[in-house]
Amino acid sequence: MSPVASNLQIDSARLWETIHETAKFGATPKGGVRRLTLGPEDKKVRDWFRKSCEAAGLEVHVDALGSMFALRKGRDMSKPPIGLGSHLDTQPTGGKFDGVLGTLAALEVVRTLNDAGIETEVPICIVNWTNEEGSRFAPAMMASAAYVGDFTTDDILSRKDAEGVTVGEALDSIGYRGEKPVGTQKLSKFVELHIEQGPILEAEGKTIGVVDSGQGVLWYDGKITGFESHAGSTPMPLRRDALASLSEIVLAMESIAKKHGPNAVGTIGEAVIAKPSRNVIPGEIAFTMDCRSSDAAIMAALDKDLRAAIAGIAARRKVEVTIDLVWHKPPTHFDPTAASRPAPVTMPAISTPSCRRRWCSCPARTASATTNLRTRRRSIARQAPTC
Amino acid sequence: MSPVASNLQIDSARLWETIHETAKFGATPKGGVRRLTLGPEDKKVRDWFRKSCEAAGLEVHVDALGSMFALRKGRDMSKPPIGLGSHLDTQPTGGKFDGVLGTLAALEVVRTLNDAGIETEVPICIVNWTNEEGSRFAPAMMASAAYVGDFTTDDILSRKDAEGVTVGEALDSIGYRGEKPVGTQKLSKFVELHIEQGPILEAEGKTIGVVDSGQGVLWYDGKITGFESHAGSTPMPLRRDALASLSEIVLAMESIAKKHGPNAVGTIGEAVIAKPSRNVIPGEIAFTMDCRSSDAAIMAALDKDLRAAIAGIAARRKVEVTIDLVWHKPPTHFDPTAASRPAPVTMPAISTPSCRRRWCSCPARTASATTNLRTRRRSIARQAPTC
Repeated sequence: MSPVASNLQIDSARLWETIHETAKFGATPKGGVRRLTLGPEDKKVRDWFRKSCEAAGLEVHVDALGSMFALRKGRDMSKPPIGLGSHLDTQPTGGKFDGVLGTLAALEVVRTLNDAGIETEVPICIVNWTNEEGSRFAPAMMASAAYVGDFTTDDILSRKDAEGVTVGEALDSIGYRGEKPVGTQKLSKFVELHIEQGPILEAEGKTIGVVDSGQGVLWYDGKITGFESHAGSTPMPLRRDALASLSEIVLAMESIAKKHGPNAVGTIGEAVIAKPSRNVIPGEIAFTMDCRSSDAAIMAALDKDLRAAIAGIAARRKVEVTIDLVWHKPPTHFDPTAASRPAPVTMPAISTPSCRRRWCSCPARTASATTNLRTRRRSIARQAPTC
Repeated sequence: MSPVASNLQIDSARLWETIHETAKFGATPKGGVRRLTLGPEDKKVRDWFRKSCEAAGLEVHVDALGSMFALRKGRDMSKPPIGLGSHLDTQPTGGKFDGVLGTLAALEVVRTLNDAGIETEVPICIVNWTNEEGSRFAPAMMASAAYVGDFTTDDILSRKDAEGVTVGEALDSIGYRGEKPVGTQKLSKFVELHIEQGPILEAEGKTIGVVDSGQGVLWYDGKITGFESHAGSTPMPLRRDALASLSEIVLAMESIAKKHGPNAVGTIGEAVIAKPSRNVIPGEIAFTMDCRSSDAAIMAALDKDLRAAIAGIAARRKVEVTIDLVWHKPPTHFDPTAASRPAPVTMPAISTPSCRRRWCSCPARTASATTNLRTRRRSIARQAPTC
């Protein structure tokens, strides 16, 4: 690999201003953004993005699912471009940076290369993926998932929002059903700068991190069946309390995840008592469990320890507990040649798990740089080191 | 007090048949009973009850809330009668015995006295209270509560069911709005035989118990505020998990109740995660707590220990926990002259907390006998020993 140039800096003020320019499309009163995918605000930001890319000399094309590809030519056009980008749609109560940073930092990289008169060996392609958030249409990350072959285009086009509008109809309504078949634009690598959604960088006083792997995920649906009885007349030793059983499971999961930490987390995010009443001992509870690690051996240990702990709790408390593994995603390890190059970075950034998940099945897996929201205005990382 | 006759036995077969006779009014396919208060089935059982009482020589009158009083004269009519009874309404998915046993056992006592030609010193009055269950109109036990002065008659008459029908309208529709003002029929004592709703008698292999006190109750509304964060990206040590905090509170309450047991129970019957999601660490949970003991000192200790435990959990887990005491009912101690006389008993019986609660403010507090459903057909307890 060629050495990385160390003296090239982006114009961080320009990037900051550009981000705030897009924040107007769907701005909410308290400084947030509501820009649901394929809605009128999304059309506005897409139109703006297309114009800005074209102004930077890029050739923009759109695929059949509305994902936008803005190509900057390289010396060797026989090679597939490096992809840079993220998404411009937001959650219903979204912020200014999630997704936007990755897309506009890519634009800023191109602008900086333009200003410096640099021609890269391979082309660069900025991507704005359709519906990464998934809050209007399910699933989230549908267009990038179709790009890597997880879904067919027709399947995704037929998905409906809460009002019954299909993705296809929504694309047509804003004029963003492109002509290019999904997957036409090949990419050799893909780098996504993203804000970190978790608290690690802040807790460790760091400004940037590189995601070297995507966590594996174990999702379980659980159910506890104890015995519903009266809170006043049932002595403590005779109870088969589903909530007390769940409580032990919650604390066991916490303890097991800590034991296998730091590369392990375990969460019970949902727990619903079947017929809740102030004076009735809960007899039945449905719950979900989410366990993650980027180490497959640790994932196996989490599963094993959890099942053993639950069996013990169920036996001791004389309740029935069933857990069904409803999703098992193995860990993903990003391309180490990209992931080994953290570089000086400029922008407020918090990584989201979404960016990690998306690329798990992408043939051009690579790293996402993550930086801390509190620090901004240095020079942006050049996360496309093979160019 | 005069000695209790020991050779007087009821006709347990007759009582058993009588109970099954009433079970036809509102019978459900699997052997249960659906006889909502003041509905057409309740009218049928009331008509039947009136006729049966009159056939036993009793004088039946009805108060303004539909409670039925069937009087058997005593030698000294200047003294208020001993009350015996319970209720004939059921839950929507009720059984044959709850309430019915207490009402019909009273009738059986009268029939037995009649058969033996016994005249009692003071009168006996069988009572069928209106709407003990509370499943059609709230609150439960409304007519007996009005009898003891907890509500005005007009207040209760204006209460509406889910269809907007008032108690007054429902009484008129079945012809059971009586002329006697509520409280007119004085009672010196009241004894209620009732099935036990809890598991104690069965667990201890006993067939009857006497309720010597009503539990005091502490009801709390609680709220835990932690921090909602992503299940994948938030390391275990940085979490402020509301559900893990609740879990510790549930187990602390269980442990505290056991420590103060056997005369103490503690239950968390409701717990609702604010925005539950499979991959989000719960940030906020609302919950309720129910603590009971028939010993006021233990109740105070439960409250104190619980608050201390919760404060410790909140501090350690860096979450905010508020608990508001929304109801504090002190313990009730029944008349020991009645409660000290357990007698041979015949009928399937499981005590319900409702019967205990009702009499907490009654000037004629006395005991409820409770027997186990598994044993039947002995001789019925004479639970009115002062006659």
